[in-house]
Amino acid sequence: MNRKDCCVPLSESERLNFLRAIAEIIGDKNLRTGVDAEPYEQDWRGRYQRAALAVALPGSTEDVSAVVRLCAERGIAIVPQAGNTGLTGGATVPEGAEVLLVNVSRLNKVHRVDLPNNAMTVGAGCILADMRALADTHDRQFPVMLGSVGSCEVGGLISTNAGGTGVLRYGNMREQVLGLEVVLPDGRIWNGLKALRKDNTGYDLKQLFVGAEGTLGIVTAAVLKLYPKLAVSATAMVALERVDQAIALLRELQRVTGGRVETFELMSQSQLQIVLRQGVTSGSPMAADAPWYVLLELADSSPDWNASESMETALGAAMEDGLIIDAVIASDQSKAERIWNLRHSISESCKREGFVASNDTSVPVSALPEFLERVTLRLANELPQAQVAHCGHVGDGNVHVIVIFPHDIGDASAREAAAHQANTIVHQESVACGGSISAEHGIGRMHIDRLPLYTSEVEMDLLRRVKLAIDPGKIMNPGKVLRLP
Amino acid sequence: MNRKDCCVPLSESERLNFLRAIAEIIGDKNLRTGVDAEPYEQDWRGRYQRAALAVALPGSTEDVSAVVRLCAERGIAIVPQAGNTGLTGGATVPEGAEVLLVNVSRLNKVHRVDLPNNAMTVGAGCILADMRALADTHDRQFPVMLGSVGSCEVGGLISTNAGGTGVLRYGNMREQVLGLEVVLPDGRIWNGLKALRKDNTGYDLKQLFVGAEGTLGIVTAAVLKLYPKLAVSATAMVALERVDQAIALLRELQRVTGGRVETFELMSQSQLQIVLRQGVTSGSPMAADAPWYVLLELADSSPDWNASESMETALGAAMEDGLIIDAVIASDQSKAERIWNLRHSISESCKREGFVASNDTSVPVSALPEFLERVTLRLANELPQAQVAHCGHVGDGNVHVIVIFPHDIGDASAREAAAHQANTIVHQESVACGGSISAEHGIGRMHIDRLPLYTSEVEMDLLRRVKLAIDPGKIMNPGKVLRLP
Repeated sequence: MNRKDCCVPLSESERLNFLRAIAEIIGDKNLRTGVDAEPYEQDWRGRYQRAALAVALPGSTEDVSAVVRLCAERGIAIVPQAGNTGLTGGATVPEGAEVLLVNVSRLNKVHRVDLPNNAMTVGAGCILADMRALADTHDRQFPVMLGSVGSCEVGGLISTNAGGTGVLRYGNMREQVLGLEVVLPDGRIWNGLKALRKDNTGYDLKQLFVGAEGTLGIVTAAVLKLYPKLAVSATAMVALERVDQAIALLRELQRVTGGRVETFELMSQSQLQIVLRQGVTSGSPMAADAPWYVLLELADSSPDWNASESMETALGAAMEDGLIIDAVIASDQSKAERIWNLRHSISESCKREGFVASNDTSVPVSALPEFLERVTLRLANELPQAQVAHCGHVGDGNVHVIVIFPHDIGDASAREAAAHQANTIVHQESVACGGSISAEHGIGRMHIDRLPLYTSEVEMDLLRRVKLAIDPGKIMNPGKVLRLP
Repeated sequence: MNRKDCCVPLSESERLNFLRAIAEIIGDKNLRTGVDAEPYEQDWRGRYQRAALAVALPGSTEDVSAVVRLCAERGIAIVPQAGNTGLTGGATVPEGAEVLLVNVSRLNKVHRVDLPNNAMTVGAGCILADMRALADTHDRQFPVMLGSVGSCEVGGLISTNAGGTGVLRYGNMREQVLGLEVVLPDGRIWNGLKALRKDNTGYDLKQLFVGAEGTLGIVTAAVLKLYPKLAVSATAMVALERVDQAIALLRELQRVTGGRVETFELMSQSQLQIVLRQGVTSGSPMAADAPWYVLLELADSSPDWNASESMETALGAAMEDGLIIDAVIASDQSKAERIWNLRHSISESCKREGFVASNDTSVPVSALPEFLERVTLRLANELPQAQVAHCGHVGDGNVHVIVIFPHDIGDASAREAAAHQANTIVHQESVACGGSISAEHGIGRMHIDRLPLYTSEVEMDLLRRVKLAIDPGKIMNPGKVLRLP
């Protein structure tokens, strides 16, 4: 059987025959159907849900390879999945296609921790929190940090080039990858598990698979960088009049601390008010009201560095220079947690406040003030019924514009229309400022039809060429990132 | 005229007609032939020399585009070139092909310096030293540093993913690139000049062109990262018994200084002796003889950081821990220069000592001790007439193994055979240790037939697929990186 047209449904006997062959490779108990498959068939935001032919949970790279080879031979498409925590539906079953969902969670072995090389080789199913804990036990740090730290896995982190709060100092997930192992769309295994800091032998193939959202193959293992463990830190919250002052403060702090700015998160006054109203009852540590706040952390691996003193000196100078209105430095761990609690309560508080249309755009850091001014003005004019709040990563130019409609805005289609209108405004203004419509979440399924609106035809053509060069059979993760002819 | 077979020579009238059409695009004075073309037709090591049809020096991206379009239409291959300082013949005219050499040196405009975004947009013809000076005038640093700093250009730095001494702290050239503009093999311009720290909208296309050595298109401009300017530094030289102690020292210094190790260069006793014998007459600053030396620099943007004190404390502790035998800390700038002069004299001193076969391999940092032991032993056994010296970047696992034969080893073919024998041993041992045969210089023309020896068939297939997807006409830089069917 080799089905040339993926849109023709499998007959029942074809389906059973196929599933029997998959089960022979991975074992019956690792092939899930029906109720057992459901947890994998819905994304965690509950936005997408559709049944696959089955969910396969292979336990080795060789098994992934055999499963993919079988699918390729039979013309059955594959949706790769790791921790299933994606925000754009990149690991969900698309409409109109019968697919095998291949989840790599069982590839969760730590193959090697190489301390002199500051690297670890891990399976695609390893969970971020576990890797961070592992690094910690070896007196090292793995610096990627996201909200889904407890359940997201290496394969997904790599395939979505995950961002988060650590990008400011350590770069995106892409920068953490030294080597990769990938099962290609025809089932062959590409062993690119090198652990090198310098290697210029042909095109850097691993870069293709990082951020490809599973459309070019299935990442099965990776060599990741480790960093010295942090020994000291200091947390503060400051109040500012303008966003350009936040940028100036960041650059000055980076200079005088020698790059020890670990986190630098912006929050608008409107965002803080929502958090205080809906979530954090202990109030704001800041005495003064201000249009903008920054929550920041200085940290270092050097135990002799006086983080609090550096913070005091630097913020004192910033106050004198008129960069900031007010500052609160956490004097102990519980006060630091109180500050970070404001940041971590944003998502939940906004949900309580109303129907949320959130965005994940980025612009050049220098364009942040203009972008935020333009987007806020347009949203106020065109969507007067909505509240607008801002929060995010100043140093990455990645400030999330959150548009909150009243809970009673209407039914599902009214909500969809409102969200679409808000997204369109945010995307248009981002692109007008030289920005991106998806800074860290990827394209997945959610933005597949938006991508061509904001991307040149030359670039779309290059994207399609890359896809078809690596996956000519169009078997890998259909309906994600790109539509194909 | 559309020549399907590039190997059929052009007739004289075809040649003249073609050159006339190119001159119409770029102007007569920017089309060089004969004697005027020669400086571009020989690589700076004098290893490769062959005449092109002509050398074109377009002055704008649009002109590059028009030139490439014309070549594509007529089936004439192109060799892209920037500063012409490459070490593997990547920008030279191959045997058996009539090509147009397209040099981008005139694209030397600085388009924008964006300080709040810590970025600059520059043409592919900008010289590294000029960019470093420009950054400096803006209180910033551009951290890439190579021997050819005074003449290498952005287009070449990007196309070879240049390394150098800054990789330890700042990463390779790849990590400095935020955005790219590329003229594709059919003449279309891909404008990827984004200046974003986070952007997950489809495959990261710029990664394809970084390190592609001009085989996928011509880089015409780039957005590059800037860093805070260094304000303080301290230099030292230490003596060690073993390479694993050098690695342990590096990791400890990175930890206690919070990543402020700017340079960390290894040198073998044999290498130091050659330098003292042939080059540096002022002697070594070290009292003790030891198998290995490290020359290192701590540096920071924070003017308040006491670099010398940190160096003293850290090296004092390393001495107590038995990691190092002896240390000399430069007490002033001239003493620091005396130390670095040892490092900078290596290349010239080795040339005086004999016929040099140098290598550019890398291994995982943890494998350096084993690699150096194995390769030194094999070279001593199999090439007893040669001296062996080691120098390079410990933190990148990129230690250059330098094999020096007596000056009177024989004629050109005897030298070629000796170099080949040395290279083969070094490459085999590198790959056996999980390493690369070209850490920072690229494949170019020199290693094109070696690459498949050390690369899996799966990987070679992927490399060819990428090449043919972007350059189906095989017009860009023939005879470099990959042989095509």
